[in-house]
Amino acid sequence: MTRLWNDPADFADEMVDGFVRAHGRWVRKVTGGVARSTQSADPTVSLVIGGGSGHYPAFAGLVGPGLAHGAAMGNLFASPSAHQVESVARAADQGRGILFSYGNYAGDVLHFNAAQDALREAGIDCRTVTVTDDIFSAKPNEREKRRGIAGDLTVFKTAGAAAASGFPLDDVERIARTANDRTRSMGVAFTGCTLPGADEPLFTVPEGRMAIGLGIHGEPGIDETDIPTANELAELFVSRLLDDAEIPENVTVDGARVVPILNGLGSVKSEELFVVYARIAELLDERGLTVVDPQVGEFCTSFDMAGASLTLFWLDDELEQLWSAPADTPAYRTGNVDSTALTTVTTEDAAESDELPDADEASADVAARIAELLAVVRDVVDENVAELGRIDAIAGDGDHGIGMQRGTVAAAGTAASLAEKRAGAASLLARSGDAWSDRAGGTSGALWGVILRTIGDHLGDAGRPDAATISAGVSHAARAVMDYGKAAVGDKTMVDALVPFAEELHRAVDAGSTLTEAWTDAARAATEAAEATADLLPAMGRARSHGEKALGVRDPGAVSFALITTRIAAELGR
Amino acid sequence: MTRLWNDPADFADEMVDGFVRAHGRWVRKVTGGVARSTQSADPTVSLVIGGGSGHYPAFAGLVGPGLAHGAAMGNLFASPSAHQVESVARAADQGRGILFSYGNYAGDVLHFNAAQDALREAGIDCRTVTVTDDIFSAKPNEREKRRGIAGDLTVFKTAGAAAASGFPLDDVERIARTANDRTRSMGVAFTGCTLPGADEPLFTVPEGRMAIGLGIHGEPGIDETDIPTANELAELFVSRLLDDAEIPENVTVDGARVVPILNGLGSVKSEELFVVYARIAELLDERGLTVVDPQVGEFCTSFDMAGASLTLFWLDDELEQLWSAPADTPAYRTGNVDSTALTTVTTEDAAESDELPDADEASADVAARIAELLAVVRDVVDENVAELGRIDAIAGDGDHGIGMQRGTVAAAGTAASLAEKRAGAASLLARSGDAWSDRAGGTSGALWGVILRTIGDHLGDAGRPDAATISAGVSHAARAVMDYGKAAVGDKTMVDALVPFAEELHRAVDAGSTLTEAWTDAARAATEAAEATADLLPAMGRARSHGEKALGVRDPGAVSFALITTRIAAELGR
Repeated sequence: MTRLWNDPADFADEMVDGFVRAHGRWVRKVTGGVARSTQSADPTVSLVIGGGSGHYPAFAGLVGPGLAHGAAMGNLFASPSAHQVESVARAADQGRGILFSYGNYAGDVLHFNAAQDALREAGIDCRTVTVTDDIFSAKPNEREKRRGIAGDLTVFKTAGAAAASGFPLDDVERIARTANDRTRSMGVAFTGCTLPGADEPLFTVPEGRMAIGLGIHGEPGIDETDIPTANELAELFVSRLLDDAEIPENVTVDGARVVPILNGLGSVKSEELFVVYARIAELLDERGLTVVDPQVGEFCTSFDMAGASLTLFWLDDELEQLWSAPADTPAYRTGNVDSTALTTVTTEDAAESDELPDADEASADVAARIAELLAVVRDVVDENVAELGRIDAIAGDGDHGIGMQRGTVAAAGTAASLAEKRAGAASLLARSGDAWSDRAGGTSGALWGVILRTIGDHLGDAGRPDAATISAGVSHAARAVMDYGKAAVGDKTMVDALVPFAEELHRAVDAGSTLTEAWTDAARAATEAAEATADLLPAMGRARSHGEKALGVRDPGAVSFALITTRIAAELGR
Repeated sequence: MTRLWNDPADFADEMVDGFVRAHGRWVRKVTGGVARSTQSADPTVSLVIGGGSGHYPAFAGLVGPGLAHGAAMGNLFASPSAHQVESVARAADQGRGILFSYGNYAGDVLHFNAAQDALREAGIDCRTVTVTDDIFSAKPNEREKRRGIAGDLTVFKTAGAAAASGFPLDDVERIARTANDRTRSMGVAFTGCTLPGADEPLFTVPEGRMAIGLGIHGEPGIDETDIPTANELAELFVSRLLDDAEIPENVTVDGARVVPILNGLGSVKSEELFVVYARIAELLDERGLTVVDPQVGEFCTSFDMAGASLTLFWLDDELEQLWSAPADTPAYRTGNVDSTALTTVTTEDAAESDELPDADEASADVAARIAELLAVVRDVVDENVAELGRIDAIAGDGDHGIGMQRGTVAAAGTAASLAEKRAGAASLLARSGDAWSDRAGGTSGALWGVILRTIGDHLGDAGRPDAATISAGVSHAARAVMDYGKAAVGDKTMVDALVPFAEELHRAVDAGSTLTEAWTDAARAATEAAEATADLLPAMGRARSHGEKALGVRDPGAVSFALITTRIAAELGR
């Protein structure tokens, strides 16, 4: 379990602070994560990696010469927001394009893709290679659906070396894709981990048993067995990874050159890993493989989870050269990086403009009222945080309550401070939405960020909007959310409540109701729709694997949406 | 707890195998541990470190260019034997002298000093600097009694860099001593660790509590408190280490340059350490210190123990230069080592001569009989392993039974194989004694090694010894053990049984008894003496701190000596 923290809500931020303080030679803090603190003489393609925190040295520990240029760092086990990814990418950008690479998880894909879209719109060439090394997360004929675990390292390392060698973006992307095609991993776990401040472990494995294929956030494995001997575990790893279906195309096993990466998940220690590795090395020898530069240690952890994974990286000549190239990062160092060619970045991270766009008095009054409403939103989430967590724990990972709490606290705080500065409605909503999305992490935070920003765009920073403008803003927000989250009504997501809300609001306003009347009707529709999600099977993401359990349980995103809109209706009616 | 092993008795050996297989670029396996697999163009002083296993990366992970030349690797939490230390030192020797450096623990001091004596006799200049950084293990005015924990790294790193720079032995020793004088650490623990195959943790800390000053093998701490916040722990660390009594001589705190090393003991993870470090860095700033090259990670662990330590290394100009010099080892890499100046060591570790000295038929017959007796010794230890562990757990660390089992299995096996080759009595006893001492680890293994070797010296490889010769050999062995172990009768050690045994054997043989009769009388005297140790307060080593509990409990070393000699008496009488 995790024992050392201050306020659990501050854990991720304080962790980044400490990480940067300890590693200023390699990294500097930027909004949303870290970027290198040095730059090479000639600009190169920038490799931007990232994901949730709690997997150190993935991801921030891999930023430095010869490896990544920046890492977007989400909250614990939560994707960074699109805004965070974009900010890190901008800080890392050297004008030669950006390769995004990260583990293939729905939340990360959502946010990295949104950032990529925004950067492409700004004229920056971006590519993406998601890592899909975990052979137990989907069948061999569905490799693109697999998730990424410790095999991340092979993709990052070779792509980073390609960038350092001056390769153009096309080639860096090609290298990353080839490395991913030639990387396979499998993991086992003996215990789960307990996050800072949590009462319960994120997942459990029965005493004396071992889960096979369990993911690094506790995603279900495919099998369970008694804990084997070290030799038996080595044999399990090697036999599964050398299964015919897992040998990359165009590879002949006998005589192949491979990098084995034996990874500890957190509290399986080096001594145990060496005992397992002794047998792995023998088995690879017996199969006629040539082992190159083996790695035994911690490369992608899950806090203090007891578990281990083996990765095999099947080299070709180009990949071997890139794998062996020098790298110097906080957590991964090999060879001799030519440090004479590096200069320290002295410019601060281009601070985001603090200047507020001009707003008229009417809009500033509206913004002040919105800040009051966001405080009410914060309160209603705070009152319901345990219940939201409880619902989410049945179908998801149980962090919806905490995530909404983090997000609404941040949004209400930002809004209050901007209202004091007499910001206009659009500016206040956009920045509060970013704060919500950055701090909440995860999908629901991102979607609420989209809602606030989209409504804000409709309100502008001038004048007092009428009910029709607000209603139109909400309708646009509903469409934007569906687009961003790739969800439709019936998918058992927030959309199931948001769309009826937007439709009823539009209908009532159109029929001549006041905003308060219309909002009240709409909130009632949202509440009914949220209740009705209990009758739906979940259709998206992680919840799928828990389908049976989730039937009869409401979607937490729809429920919180209904709670929030209902409380706002009450506040509007006061 | 430790989960992955094959036969727990083989754990340490298999761990070394796997470690070497994974790190052949840096190390090669030699008898007793590892030595570098490369050598520099010009010979240098050799730095030989070591200690028990279970503390990775201490010690083998720190062998490589710029750091150590060899590491003697004992069994889990057990000192390497003198024979192992000597073997590693011989493999690492380059003809410019050897600096031994290791944590200040009684068992390690005993064995390293014995190895040093042997090497000095062979004309090799040796020096020793023991590391004494743990401020909670003795008062400031008794620094030489303190034990060594994660502060090992500062001493090894600077001494290794001094050796790499070509400094003569005098200077390398001086550097190590200065570094140790300027290094202070303190540790805390939340849980103990469970060794491979053990049923119980080595030590426990109550749930929700934190032990202050607990050692890396569970040596008692000095205080216990509720688990603090991360910031409170940072404040505890810094305030204790900046206590006036802990500031090294000639150092002014304000403006001083320090390397902080925040070390995780095993299952406190990087993310937690970064949160703690964020506050440590602030506190050091506030006190006017300049932080140089901070280290946050695992440097000296205790398997998967949950705990952490902070080390402050107070630099001077020379130490700072040496600390910052390049190093390239399996677990510690910094700067760029000039690898063009390195050549790979292709010669195998000078295999110890397998050739047996000539022996006559009479001596070979005696040796065969001794091999039978050693098999009987193995059996009696095997029958009593649990009881010996139980007695030892009250006053010591509970490993006496396991250690004796490992040792006697090894000794009996070696003896059987040598008897088949018709070795003489002296050769068989010497090599069986080495096997016992190497495999048992710890003090009792070393003492039994001394006993067998000394008796063997008296028997020679020719002729059939009479009872007087055997009795003289036993008397010499008793003196050698007292000398080696620095123990006298009444100290509640094996000596309490060994000395009465030797005296009674001498008396009876002198009075004309047969060997069997005399041995039977002597074994009876040993048994009585072993029983009487229950009335003595323990006087040596680790047991001191448990004095009260141990009163009324027999010394396990005396008890096992009595058991062994009694069973041999029975066998002789058959």
